[in-house]
Amino acid sequence: MLNSIKRATSFVQYILREKIKEGNVVIDATMGNGNDTLFLAKLVGLKGMVFAFDIQSVALESTKNKVSSNKLDSYNIKLINDSHENIDKYIMGTVNAAMFNLGYLPKGDHSIITKASSTIKSILSILSILKPGGIISIIIYYGHDGGKEEKDEVLNFLQKLSQEDVTVMQCNYTNHDNNPPIIIFIEKNK
Amino acid sequence: MLNSIKRATSFVQYILREKIKEGNVVIDATMGNGNDTLFLAKLVGLKGMVFAFDIQSVALESTKNKVSSNKLDSYNIKLINDSHENIDKYIMGTVNAAMFNLGYLPKGDHSIITKASSTIKSILSILSILKPGGIISIIIYYGHDGGKEEKDEVLNFLQKLSQEDVTVMQCNYTNHDNNPPIIIFIEKNK
Repeated sequence: MLNSIKRATSFVQYILREKIKEGNVVIDATMGNGNDTLFLAKLVGLKGMVFAFDIQSVALESTKNKVSSNKLDSYNIKLINDSHENIDKYIMGTVNAAMFNLGYLPKGDHSIITKASSTIKSILSILSILKPGGIISIIIYYGHDGGKEEKDEVLNFLQKLSQEDVTVMQCNYTNHDNNPPIIIFIEKNK
Repeated sequence: MLNSIKRATSFVQYILREKIKEGNVVIDATMGNGNDTLFLAKLVGLKGMVFAFDIQSVALESTKNKVSSNKLDSYNIKLINDSHENIDKYIMGTVNAAMFNLGYLPKGDHSIITKASSTIKSILSILSILKPGGIISIIIYYGHDGGKEEKDEVLNFLQKLSQEDVTVMQCNYTNHDNNPPIIIFIEKNK
């Protein structure tokens, strides 16, 4: 359900809900507190598979607890304590979707931030195994130190992706102050 | 259903579908060939009301035919042969949503285009009667003569709307050439 377009996370989930089916294989590239992992697991169900990545072990702890308290222990959720730039080491087949949140871990160490070079490497890895019609969502938070540089580099990279191969949509809250999040969808063309 | 984010009209309809309920009162500000009028009528149903505007009588003819061939003659669809800038002359109560397509009538006279000043007047009129949580969608086509000026003026106006009152989201196809459409959502805050 979409109550409002105001919350970036709800907006992204509303779009992805329609694109992800039961049994799909999906990626949470930036596990964080595990909200997207949970959202994805419920969508793909018991027959699906979620690969979730984070370099911070506190993220894995938090997500593991969330999975348990939501009684999803029997789901195929693989929590991986590594950077999303190493996705190709862990996933062999194709995937249907991936989610990114760029910035730092909420309530975590704010000096540990995602970086453009690893984000771009990760997006390229995922694009190479993404099925036609598959989608990648990215929410960019950039109010922190180093955030603007990452944002500009990632947006610039995305603009150069071939329109034959993918559709890049960038959504901005244009009347909001204070670095509102930027939402990106990358859809692989058929 | 959302097959792809690539078609601006499908993307807009997917968002509005979730925001518009049976019995709602809604506006098609730029009737054109009647596709949005039809979409809106089906959403609001027999108990709802659609006000559709166009300055070109050929648009009304085309929409009237579309309504008939879809067997929606008993629906409350009011086709108004006037500019959307005069909306306040025709609608007294509040409304739940409105749709705009800016540019010219497809397959029509390409010299007759929407203009920023009337579009802005129309948006302000609708905002004054839009219910909290209500939404306005705008697709801007600007590849034609005068299109860029209208686009810039409308986008600039929207950026200045108070974030206390409304949320403005602007979605661009950032990797597409040839003036891809721009999608806008304006949601009235609660």
